[in-house]
Amino acid sequence: MSASEEVQKITQQVVDSFGPLTTPRMREVMSSLVRHLHDFAREVSLQYDEWEAGVRYMNSVGQASTPTRNEGHRLSNILGLESLVTQISYVVAADSTQQATSPSILGPFWSPYAPYCENGDNIARSPHQGQTCVMHGHVTDLRTNRAIPNAIVDIWQASSNGKYDFQDTENQEPMNLRGKFHTNQHGYYYFYCLKPTAYSLPHDGPAWELLQALDRHSMRPAHIHLMVSHPEYVPVITQLYPDDDPYIYSDTVFAVKDDLVVNFTPRENDPKAELDLHFDIVLEPASNTISSFL
Amino acid sequence: MSASEEVQKITQQVVDSFGPLTTPRMREVMSSLVRHLHDFAREVSLQYDEWEAGVRYMNSVGQASTPTRNEGHRLSNILGLESLVTQISYVVAADSTQQATSPSILGPFWSPYAPYCENGDNIARSPHQGQTCVMHGHVTDLRTNRAIPNAIVDIWQASSNGKYDFQDTENQEPMNLRGKFHTNQHGYYYFYCLKPTAYSLPHDGPAWELLQALDRHSMRPAHIHLMVSHPEYVPVITQLYPDDDPYIYSDTVFAVKDDLVVNFTPRENDPKAELDLHFDIVLEPASNTISSFL
Repeated sequence: MSASEEVQKITQQVVDSFGPLTTPRMREVMSSLVRHLHDFAREVSLQYDEWEAGVRYMNSVGQASTPTRNEGHRLSNILGLESLVTQISYVVAADSTQQATSPSILGPFWSPYAPYCENGDNIARSPHQGQTCVMHGHVTDLRTNRAIPNAIVDIWQASSNGKYDFQDTENQEPMNLRGKFHTNQHGYYYFYCLKPTAYSLPHDGPAWELLQALDRHSMRPAHIHLMVSHPEYVPVITQLYPDDDPYIYSDTVFAVKDDLVVNFTPRENDPKAELDLHFDIVLEPASNTISSFL
Repeated sequence: MSASEEVQKITQQVVDSFGPLTTPRMREVMSSLVRHLHDFAREVSLQYDEWEAGVRYMNSVGQASTPTRNEGHRLSNILGLESLVTQISYVVAADSTQQATSPSILGPFWSPYAPYCENGDNIARSPHQGQTCVMHGHVTDLRTNRAIPNAIVDIWQASSNGKYDFQDTENQEPMNLRGKFHTNQHGYYYFYCLKPTAYSLPHDGPAWELLQALDRHSMRPAHIHLMVSHPEYVPVITQLYPDDDPYIYSDTVFAVKDDLVVNFTPRENDPKAELDLHFDIVLEPASNTISSFL
């Protein structure tokens, strides 16, 4: 067998090594992954020292991860993969309708422990330098346009220094700028939060090394994270971006979509807030979908 | 923009984010990697929970790595990638000749600290249950067929319990079953070693998890590692496999090639060894190549 034939043969050998007890989905996913991984190596004639650098890099990703830092998630984000996977699920779910609120990536900062709050509460519980904003709107049914009472609007955001609570324990109390709100009988929610601030991914660790090697910036546009759910609807995880942010066209994790860019307006007659953000959310009934994405 | 268009657009956005200061090779490699990664996700309609499992898995690989355990290297091996990269380099180097000794993977157990030895030395310095073997042969020039004096033959192997020295510090002294030999004026080398023993990759950690999920065995055929070098030649890293090993057709790291399968014969009139292994090595002059692989 010639050397060129050997190069082609290895891929099939790997796929053929999968035993009969592997699940059909595992076989499908891993066969495709191995073929693309090998095609990549052949396409660029991957050299031995480059492969070694890749192995070292992969090990460094796990080694940089801690309970409050998910470097694998961050690497996946800067390569656009979480954004792509989010979009793939949305296409499956929404092909016939295409009007539910667009999803965006979850990111590594969501917490399952955000406190339940009352409408009108302020989630900024620690000092900050930001502008306070009232965020409010209706959650409605895609098919009937009717209000959805008792939907849960789970919001989280970085503080005005660009850091989330658990990245910034010196300045922020746990669960600062996190909260879960129930929509009322009219499907309405409202709360006080901050106009968000653009921030940089950390300037250390493997993801930052890769950004530097690719001559890329590390900025995310300012954003508010949302996860909106109700037992009878497909949950939506998304982010909202102020329309005056300079990074909305070059988000380093590729998570901005046109319908998620929002306008903050001056708030009148409210001593507690300078700004107002009106955002309505449209959910797709669960029975309307092939699959949900969570 | 429709949801389907968004899915296609993200890949181009990622590639377009690479800045002008990234090197041409980095741009080439990472553009190809991103395209294949995204094509993979689209091809299998990668679901959010599957992507999350992949991120957790990637982090676990680095976290399982230690100074004596390179889990990223092992994962790469069981997916056939080191074997493929070795073969890609060989095609580049040998397209016009195809007669130099075939390379195989380096694996994670080579040490730069193997001691220099004299021809005739025995590299088994700690107790073992194996069969002692004389390994010997000539190192010659691919183009002229002439002997190459002063080539370095660097050998390493697991002991009869399937473990390398630094995996087995209770039973093996450091540098057991490792040594570097110089060929003599006739290009000849010889030393005492063990007929190698088949062994399993470890039954813990991320690589083993993946082997189980793919219903694969974890066995490598018995092998002797070789790295043969000389300043004027392309070095060859390779492995030799006894022809009576049951795993030569199903090596879990895909590293066996036909010309690397060897026959151990009975050794006559040598009280120090039961077996004999004759293996000649052919090196390609360095000037004859487009690139070396180390």
